[in-house]
Amino acid sequence: VVAPKTVLIVYAHQSPSSFNAAAKDVAVQTLTAQGCEVIVSDLYAMNFHSSATAADIKGNLKNPEHFLYDEETFIAWKEDRLSDDIKEEHRKVAQADLIIFQFPLYWFTVPAIMKGWMERVLTQGFAYTLQTIYDNGNFKDKKAVLSFTTGGIESMYLPDGINGDINVCLWPLQNGVLRFCGFQVLAPQIFWCVGHTPPSERTAMLEAWQARLNGMLDEQPLSFAPTKLFDLSFQAGFRLRSDIKEAYASQPYGLTTGQHLGKPFPPNNQTKSAPHDKQ
Amino acid sequence: VVAPKTVLIVYAHQSPSSFNAAAKDVAVQTLTAQGCEVIVSDLYAMNFHSSATAADIKGNLKNPEHFLYDEETFIAWKEDRLSDDIKEEHRKVAQADLIIFQFPLYWFTVPAIMKGWMERVLTQGFAYTLQTIYDNGNFKDKKAVLSFTTGGIESMYLPDGINGDINVCLWPLQNGVLRFCGFQVLAPQIFWCVGHTPPSERTAMLEAWQARLNGMLDEQPLSFAPTKLFDLSFQAGFRLRSDIKEAYASQPYGLTTGQHLGKPFPPNNQTKSAPHDKQ
Repeated sequence: VVAPKTVLIVYAHQSPSSFNAAAKDVAVQTLTAQGCEVIVSDLYAMNFHSSATAADIKGNLKNPEHFLYDEETFIAWKEDRLSDDIKEEHRKVAQADLIIFQFPLYWFTVPAIMKGWMERVLTQGFAYTLQTIYDNGNFKDKKAVLSFTTGGIESMYLPDGINGDINVCLWPLQNGVLRFCGFQVLAPQIFWCVGHTPPSERTAMLEAWQARLNGMLDEQPLSFAPTKLFDLSFQAGFRLRSDIKEAYASQPYGLTTGQHLGKPFPPNNQTKSAPHDKQ
Repeated sequence: VVAPKTVLIVYAHQSPSSFNAAAKDVAVQTLTAQGCEVIVSDLYAMNFHSSATAADIKGNLKNPEHFLYDEETFIAWKEDRLSDDIKEEHRKVAQADLIIFQFPLYWFTVPAIMKGWMERVLTQGFAYTLQTIYDNGNFKDKKAVLSFTTGGIESMYLPDGINGDINVCLWPLQNGVLRFCGFQVLAPQIFWCVGHTPPSERTAMLEAWQARLNGMLDEQPLSFAPTKLFDLSFQAGFRLRSDIKEAYASQPYGLTTGQHLGKPFPPNNQTKSAPHDKQ
């Protein structure tokens, strides 16, 4: 008997009639039908607090004269003194085998309310320690995927597009947030320019999403440079080993550009040639 | 007679005794001494609301059944129905010749409260229109600079460092937020690993910042690919012109990696070989 999987959907759109809401609903239905337990954190509906402040800590601060959020929350986590809303999110993350982040791309990254979730929930101690990052991260048995809509058309986000490579925009999130905590990062699900997509094509987009969700828990993650390829010491500076550098020098997504190692980005069939708009 | 310049400092740290506060104070003092008018938006002290919601709009929504933040705020801006806190920030931005963003790097980008400022204040119509972006952006006569502290040491953020190139992390902010609105983006001011820097070196860092501030208003901005090098039409997809692609193919910071064009990143003398810590 295989234990049922748990999926957490961290969802950030203000409107229940949005495409993002529909994508979230499709995920809930599809994964539930597979026997998964699905939990949704609907950030705007929860009025999720998105600023990292001393209000996140119960009881006395360790160093009230010089408040440092990550230090104080690390201590509060160890002493079970974090605010109830953070503890509730910790319980959800701890259970999850997969986290889906569903959002409209705002200024080339997640909306502030979702960034606030990352800052407040991915607490030092809970999500990482200075000894357990990247491949050795706390969440190395969990998967995570970014699923988002864009205002612009896909070609704007190509390497020669005016906005620059979408992979570059996603690097701080996929490598910097998710992989840092150890998550196996699945290929992003990108719904290009949904604002100008006719209803029939939006339906087709959601059907493709549904088909992907059916196999998502068995997907292989994106390739990043394995952590063991780096010299993990302050003396050596956490830089790529010189023997490795030579071996990968000719890769199209080489490390020297700060991007994924070797593996080209998976093709996305949802390109739309439609005007810039909202989602 | 040269008119005095106005500088807006958008500042995000919770503690007045932090290094970030000291960097902000140095900027206020140095620029004021030069005769500048300096305005500070101290986001945590203001309890700045950081989520993009319908509360930002006074009066009736245009499409309450399908709320789209950027569409509704664009209309509200045209009709002078934005919330008072947004209008106040608009007045500050409108006056500013230079905006300094002062913050600790949180998860490889700005803190959520500052991301919220960007989402709520850089309103469509006020900060950009679909016709006026990048070199043609609304703020093309203004300068902007990111000034921030990091937890990690500099070598972690080199192209072969475990976190990847800091320029990649900054791309969505510098090109995606600032340049998109037309700002001339000055080289970032990076205070590496201040948490483990001894007081005398922190003082030296602030003195170097002060020296830079004395000439900052005359600095040349970073080079990005000029907007005129792209085919600016939906048909052509907003991609780099093919003649240009050939000409720049050999540049180390080529467009095809989505990074700055041609100009190598300015060297930073503040490298510290100290352990990972807070700022």
